[in-house]
Amino acid sequence: MRNLKLTVAYDGTDFHGFQTQSGSDLRTVQQTLTDAWKGLTGEDALIVGAGRTDTGVHATGQVVNLRSEHTSIPDARVPYALNTLLDEDVTVHNCEPMHESFHARFDAVSKMYEYTIYNNPFPSPLHRRYSYFVRVPLDVEAMADAASHLVGRHDFAALSGNNRTVRSTLRTISACRVFRNEAMVTLQVEADGFLYHMVRNIVGTLLCVGKGEREAEWVKDVMASGNRSLAGPTAPAQGLVLRYVRYS
Amino acid sequence: MRNLKLTVAYDGTDFHGFQTQSGSDLRTVQQTLTDAWKGLTGEDALIVGAGRTDTGVHATGQVVNLRSEHTSIPDARVPYALNTLLDEDVTVHNCEPMHESFHARFDAVSKMYEYTIYNNPFPSPLHRRYSYFVRVPLDVEAMADAASHLVGRHDFAALSGNNRTVRSTLRTISACRVFRNEAMVTLQVEADGFLYHMVRNIVGTLLCVGKGEREAEWVKDVMASGNRSLAGPTAPAQGLVLRYVRYS
Repeated sequence: MRNLKLTVAYDGTDFHGFQTQSGSDLRTVQQTLTDAWKGLTGEDALIVGAGRTDTGVHATGQVVNLRSEHTSIPDARVPYALNTLLDEDVTVHNCEPMHESFHARFDAVSKMYEYTIYNNPFPSPLHRRYSYFVRVPLDVEAMADAASHLVGRHDFAALSGNNRTVRSTLRTISACRVFRNEAMVTLQVEADGFLYHMVRNIVGTLLCVGKGEREAEWVKDVMASGNRSLAGPTAPAQGLVLRYVRYS
Repeated sequence: MRNLKLTVAYDGTDFHGFQTQSGSDLRTVQQTLTDAWKGLTGEDALIVGAGRTDTGVHATGQVVNLRSEHTSIPDARVPYALNTLLDEDVTVHNCEPMHESFHARFDAVSKMYEYTIYNNPFPSPLHRRYSYFVRVPLDVEAMADAASHLVGRHDFAALSGNNRTVRSTLRTISACRVFRNEAMVTLQVEADGFLYHMVRNIVGTLLCVGKGEREAEWVKDVMASGNRSLAGPTAPAQGLVLRYVRYS
């Protein structure tokens, strides 16, 4: 039994998310990788992803593990071999052998997501696929101030979409920063785990501050309330990228 | 008569270039703008672009002039009004009134094009639409050295695609630089005018140097020969962006 750790990048635009829903034949990253492995080896592999990104969300550093019983392709050749079978919008760019118990999701220590806002009077055709266009000038310092209140171990129920399967809404954000580079406003957030829609709800909430509708301190009240309806709206998927996953 | 100078950005992926060919009904930027103006005002406007970008080439700062006989929309409202009628892949982001004789192409003093190469062992799904993927590690210093030999007034016949309509192949390049930022290798070239495929041929030629197939000095021999077949191949369209057009 080989247990391979693959690093995967994808443009989420034309995927219905990472994870295949049972009974659905919509195009997903997981199914695309499973099919490519089957095409390469004839084997039905079990593929587990570190982050179950939603429809339209991108990744440059998604990690999956793939268990294979019978193949002998050298590790270093696996990305090249898989990429010849994959479409242009998904690429494998690393492969490492792991011990049999390695699990891409359960063993992840933290994940880092990046969200990009294109903040300009007019939208940009060249950035529209990978950013959220916001016309109103944003106060990025106020957003960064608000973001700093999210760092630490907190109950993020107010920033979580509906997800009945989750046991706890406590998560630890180790870093949350917001910065501007010309028209691009970037949020980077790293945590030990993320609730459903958590990053996109953080962005929607920080945008209320950036637009001057709320003070930075207000996010503390939102968090304390545990009430999703007090937070900002869910920002759209296309601005979000899973950048990397850390393991111990 | 109003003569409006519009600044236009577009994602060239789904356009058959800037300029409409007579008798053709392929989607072009020029026709799209003409149709939007017609939808807005009912008027058939004459639209002239500064750079006739090819199929698949992008722009962030294309300039066009538009002559209008009968409209009274205030200049500052024109971009907003046009954008409501334009698809997401083309945006007008500035409008200035000009004197009647202003011509976007003939009055341009210089244009700056940027070409992006994604230089990494594996392709990037998030960059594939706006860059050219080159796997071989590139010697960017050698490319920059080669690029410096192109600066000045030269005969660029060896770097020009077939174009029987051109009277002279002399052009003046005022700046030509190549630099790396992580995996992205960028060429920026500014000139008083460009021959057909000139930037893409410069890129293809500099890539011969970057890959170590040729010395930097070789580009001088290529230029002196006037022989297109001695230069490198034409780099693909999707890496090229018209950044700005200067007027006196």
